[in-house]
Amino acid sequence: MILESLALEHTSKIVLLVLDGLGDLPHAGNGDRTPLEAAKTPNLDALANVSALGRLTPVAPGITPGSGPGHLGLFGYDPLTHLVGRGVLEALGAGIDLQPGDVAARANFCTLDAKGVVTDRRAGRIPSETCARLVAKLAAELGTFEDVNVMLQAGKGHRFVVVLRGPGLGGAVSDSDPHKGGHAVPAAHALESGSARDEKSARVVNAFVRRATEVLKAESPANGLLLRGLSERPSFAGYRERFKLRAAAIAAYPMYRGVASLAGMSLHVPAGEGAAEAFAVVEREWQAHDYLFVHVKGTDMAGEDGDFTAKVAVIESVDAALPRLMALRPDVLCITGDHSTPVSMKGHSWHPVPVLVRSDLCFRDGHSRFHEKACRAGSLGDLASKDLIAVLLAHAGRLDKYGA
Amino acid sequence: MILESLALEHTSKIVLLVLDGLGDLPHAGNGDRTPLEAAKTPNLDALANVSALGRLTPVAPGITPGSGPGHLGLFGYDPLTHLVGRGVLEALGAGIDLQPGDVAARANFCTLDAKGVVTDRRAGRIPSETCARLVAKLAAELGTFEDVNVMLQAGKGHRFVVVLRGPGLGGAVSDSDPHKGGHAVPAAHALESGSARDEKSARVVNAFVRRATEVLKAESPANGLLLRGLSERPSFAGYRERFKLRAAAIAAYPMYRGVASLAGMSLHVPAGEGAAEAFAVVEREWQAHDYLFVHVKGTDMAGEDGDFTAKVAVIESVDAALPRLMALRPDVLCITGDHSTPVSMKGHSWHPVPVLVRSDLCFRDGHSRFHEKACRAGSLGDLASKDLIAVLLAHAGRLDKYGA
Repeated sequence: MILESLALEHTSKIVLLVLDGLGDLPHAGNGDRTPLEAAKTPNLDALANVSALGRLTPVAPGITPGSGPGHLGLFGYDPLTHLVGRGVLEALGAGIDLQPGDVAARANFCTLDAKGVVTDRRAGRIPSETCARLVAKLAAELGTFEDVNVMLQAGKGHRFVVVLRGPGLGGAVSDSDPHKGGHAVPAAHALESGSARDEKSARVVNAFVRRATEVLKAESPANGLLLRGLSERPSFAGYRERFKLRAAAIAAYPMYRGVASLAGMSLHVPAGEGAAEAFAVVEREWQAHDYLFVHVKGTDMAGEDGDFTAKVAVIESVDAALPRLMALRPDVLCITGDHSTPVSMKGHSWHPVPVLVRSDLCFRDGHSRFHEKACRAGSLGDLASKDLIAVLLAHAGRLDKYGA
Repeated sequence: MILESLALEHTSKIVLLVLDGLGDLPHAGNGDRTPLEAAKTPNLDALANVSALGRLTPVAPGITPGSGPGHLGLFGYDPLTHLVGRGVLEALGAGIDLQPGDVAARANFCTLDAKGVVTDRRAGRIPSETCARLVAKLAAELGTFEDVNVMLQAGKGHRFVVVLRGPGLGGAVSDSDPHKGGHAVPAAHALESGSARDEKSARVVNAFVRRATEVLKAESPANGLLLRGLSERPSFAGYRERFKLRAAAIAAYPMYRGVASLAGMSLHVPAGEGAAEAFAVVEREWQAHDYLFVHVKGTDMAGEDGDFTAKVAVIESVDAALPRLMALRPDVLCITGDHSTPVSMKGHSWHPVPVLVRSDLCFRDGHSRFHEKACRAGSLGDLASKDLIAVLLAHAGRLDKYGA
């Protein structure tokens, strides 16, 4: 609240470059260096020298964030109080343009026996092509329920996404899923009785499941469906309203555009997954925006794969593309990650994330490299991710003094 | 709450080794080194090299903790919201096995004149033997009050502990103590009127004091008693419930076992005060527990005594015993203190406390020593003590990811 009251209009431009899962651990197989240490990064090195370094804690000490909480923190929304349901995240990840009031659920095709008992929760792991065919069949047969549109999007294997769109829907609804085989599919119900909105969603879910099961009757093995993680798209105050920023999100993967959409950013898809393609979009959107969030996925994927060499290569490719971004002369350039994805752990972790901030107003730490150890000694110190936005706004001259 | 919702069952084992009052200041008489710097610690040195270092703030910046808040923080209970009354701490320190619902008070023998006015609040500082005799006499003469048992335990000099055990007792009761000489002993009363539980405790306290004063009538100089710090044993959610940990506390001094009992740990008394005796108990309890808290008191005692050499010697004795602990190969080993007790201050202090965490998942900082200055540059950064448990659980693979 303090931040919003201090935000100023300004012409300065902020770039937030997120290398997903950037932070790492010393890697025994590679001289106890981290990927950032091992990478050859002449442009990052030069930048580090005139930047302030530090470390971000995404959620809280010891807490490993998913992609949603990781990015919400970077965007200045406390991930412990700004909750995004599983269904909503799944829908955002599937590229569905959720609107305020939409309710989303994760869904599976499953196998039911003659009595309606679930015999396989994943319908024999049908191929994605079958999933797409079944989703198309359902979409063709099913219309509206009451005044609610039910929208479907096929995913990988047996997975798909269900979105309810219509007036007066709530997201606090139980799963239409027994969570194990050998049981019938339970009806959804409002988690707290007396909420007309949640009760309406539960009615629509149950009518949809009933009708869909009829449509699937002749199918095998996917003759049923399970819905879980029902949740309502949250309504957060957006960047324009909170920070007087016209914000753009440039991300190849829909999940990250989706989370950015919750912050009211305009969404842009680059021509490829690399930094160079993303920076081309930054150039295009430069005049129309004050804040440009750029997402690079490769670092996280390499970390998840446990591939040190690949993570180094992604970092080096970002470094090689960096001059194009620098040529735009952003007033504030921040490079960081949404969490660590150590190669040795093959997954997200809780370890603090390196962060770099370059601006004419930053403390120039004089480090010769940008990596975990240098960042530990950086002048930004250790920050919660949710506080990064204040630091960026400050370095952009976009925050008024607090008090006289 | 977030932590509890993420805690996973696991087979990994965590050891928390607390050297009480470990942190210190550079000591002018010893080359401006701290005891940790001056000590010869080959085993700790080798451990530091493959560990993550950092510093803990026990309560809040500038706040000097007592033993209760210091340990509650390390155990993951915010000491600012998890309050333990003075009477309860005194009873725990006296080794009384407090049960939920018990109300405890600190007590003094005092001297009363013929009109019941307190002439000496410490009864001429009677020797401990006299105190023990008087407590035994009271215990023999006094039975129950209403349906409440009053249990007594003698302490040092004029001090003893009173515990009320029975149904429906509250701890918010005023002192039966004028807090200065020249006044009569006031009756205890419920601090807020209308609480039947507190009013019952006050009634029992007043009946007990009246009856005890009759029993002591012929004694001199200890013919009266004062009760203060009445408080109810708090009920905190324990380690099993909060973190899915079977936790053991291994401590020679009852106070530390007592605080650990509030966290639901099983309690174990080693054969001596040294680390070696404590580690023998760790070996014995290894299979039955997931989390083993080991308390070593000597560092704090040496600090309180202002004895640099003694503090160094305790640290070196822990170092010498360390291989025995390491041989158990704990998945996570944490070495720290509950607060600083600088030799030059001869008492507890607010200075941040060095902490070391060793795990296969830790950032290996590569420091050659474990001491205050190395910890300032450590990758764990500066943490609140209450957040340490999250870091330990994370390094033990015992925390699920937060959000998708």
